[in-house]
Amino acid sequence: MNSAKKIINNPNACADELLEGLVLAYDGKARKVGKRSIVMNDLRPDAPALLVGGGAGHEPIYHGLVGKNMADGAACGDIFAAPPPDIVLEATQAVNRGKGVLYLYGNYAGDVLNFDIGAELAADEGIEVRTVLIHDDVASAPAAEKHKRRGVAGLVPITKLAGAAAASVDSLDELERITRKAVANTRSVGVSTKPGSIPATGAPTFELADDVIGLGMGIHGEKGVGLIPMCTADELAPKMLDLLFGDDLELNAGDEIVFFVNSLGSTHMMELLILLRSARPILEKRGLKIHHTMVGDIVTCQEMAGVSFSITKLDDELKRLWDMPCSSVGYTKL
Amino acid sequence: MNSAKKIINNPNACADELLEGLVLAYDGKARKVGKRSIVMNDLRPDAPALLVGGGAGHEPIYHGLVGKNMADGAACGDIFAAPPPDIVLEATQAVNRGKGVLYLYGNYAGDVLNFDIGAELAADEGIEVRTVLIHDDVASAPAAEKHKRRGVAGLVPITKLAGAAAASVDSLDELERITRKAVANTRSVGVSTKPGSIPATGAPTFELADDVIGLGMGIHGEKGVGLIPMCTADELAPKMLDLLFGDDLELNAGDEIVFFVNSLGSTHMMELLILLRSARPILEKRGLKIHHTMVGDIVTCQEMAGVSFSITKLDDELKRLWDMPCSSVGYTKL
Repeated sequence: MNSAKKIINNPNACADELLEGLVLAYDGKARKVGKRSIVMNDLRPDAPALLVGGGAGHEPIYHGLVGKNMADGAACGDIFAAPPPDIVLEATQAVNRGKGVLYLYGNYAGDVLNFDIGAELAADEGIEVRTVLIHDDVASAPAAEKHKRRGVAGLVPITKLAGAAAASVDSLDELERITRKAVANTRSVGVSTKPGSIPATGAPTFELADDVIGLGMGIHGEKGVGLIPMCTADELAPKMLDLLFGDDLELNAGDEIVFFVNSLGSTHMMELLILLRSARPILEKRGLKIHHTMVGDIVTCQEMAGVSFSITKLDDELKRLWDMPCSSVGYTKL
Repeated sequence: MNSAKKIINNPNACADELLEGLVLAYDGKARKVGKRSIVMNDLRPDAPALLVGGGAGHEPIYHGLVGKNMADGAACGDIFAAPPPDIVLEATQAVNRGKGVLYLYGNYAGDVLNFDIGAELAADEGIEVRTVLIHDDVASAPAAEKHKRRGVAGLVPITKLAGAAAASVDSLDELERITRKAVANTRSVGVSTKPGSIPATGAPTFELADDVIGLGMGIHGEKGVGLIPMCTADELAPKMLDLLFGDDLELNAGDEIVFFVNSLGSTHMMELLILLRSARPILEKRGLKIHHTMVGDIVTCQEMAGVSFSITKLDDELKRLWDMPCSSVGYTKL
């Protein structure tokens, strides 16, 4: 029992127990591998593999993006912690089908360190590994310093596109090329209104005054652009979109995009829909054509309140991959 | 601005504004009709129609279950309020294709009153209407008094099955027969740990002490079986399942079911997965075969915390309908 009043068992076993539950949610289509990895059954033979991963506590990402035409597997960390190298290695071995493995994950120091060591261990076993980092958060560093940017909700459309590619292409080169393009074409910005809680203690994940919004805050409560007074959806949407439009991704009239409105946890879908109503005319005024709209709580941090907007620009190749159906616990598209 | 710190505009315009956003989320596949209804475009000609509806504030239900092989349309009420008869009528007119309209909604007094008057208005225009009430909440009245039971999260699998039927059958009789079977085969039980908030005021939707769980509580905070001390997932899951097993739906070894673990809003998917891990062995010990597992926050009440379990027993006909793909903002299945 803790002050966050969460329905759990041992507060220190949450990452292991939620993974067991996640595997069950796949109804036999995925299995647990090793200490804390999840891998799809019936993988396509002789194909390059897509491996995602990261800390637990943000469900349904990252491990809930394992699925049909999505990621082949995931290496799962403890709550808000990167998966250690041995877990990265066990997942890598399980998804590899002789054509190598692409690591796709958010740009956080702990993840980079652990996945890189995992890649070295895999190389020692003769498995070729490439890495594509997700750094879609425009508020986390200037465009010229993308290596400092965090990976946030844009990881969902990026993983969907990379997963469609992994189901289609025959080489790791091709999978890497397409995934890099998906990353290059995706930008996100988030805001926060309330912290979530740390499962082991019930303590808030960060502090934020009641009368302000954290503009550009990260999904763990990392600092953003600054604090702004609490405001309406109609006032907030243009502020968020200005940050996306002001970045280095060209968004011109006629460009086709995927637009993703994500809840960080407890912000209700009512608010997401009201924000979508605020944002859509601004996108259309710019001449952008919205090929697909996503609305939901897929990239979360416990019961943190806040939202993010993500834009992914589609070219013909990405559009074809977008239109492929996919199925996972975290995101399913017909 | 209100104490719940919600990202909205005019607190009294939430129902209208979220519907505008919802229509946008359908990317041209649905349209707004009349004052506050949503209807799919490209409806199958000469087919019976499935109309759902209810109060707003529980998104993505009810109106977010409009979709391909799901509901044809929805009549939307104000926040936590039934749609008035004129809205029921406008939605009925829009979905009717000469074969009549089935109303499918949760058993709440206000909804029954308003949908019934809407049905009379539709009858005056020569539109045949049938009504199937959803009353899956086993904690809201004894099995012998189903007419007193509330409709809760079981409405999602029921609407999925009815939607598949509406896409398949040619008569209102058949649609009604199958939908009644889906209702007869579905039971739910919910618990709550924290209230949500009323959008117009920010006030909590109900009160609940920090050290207790409301066992059997409804999605608006209605009284359930009683209060139990805060407990672990492993302790809570059997208590919830006992209420389902103790009801009048026969669940025997070998029966195939859909099992749905729903969050009422801010209960995080981590907790849903840990609860699934607790519940699944109990279902399996009883010999039940889980055909499909659903996990998510589809039936909500703002940022209320709590969960529900729903069981839908499948026969061959329902299983075939379940296996049809469907797509909506609220629930999509490949």
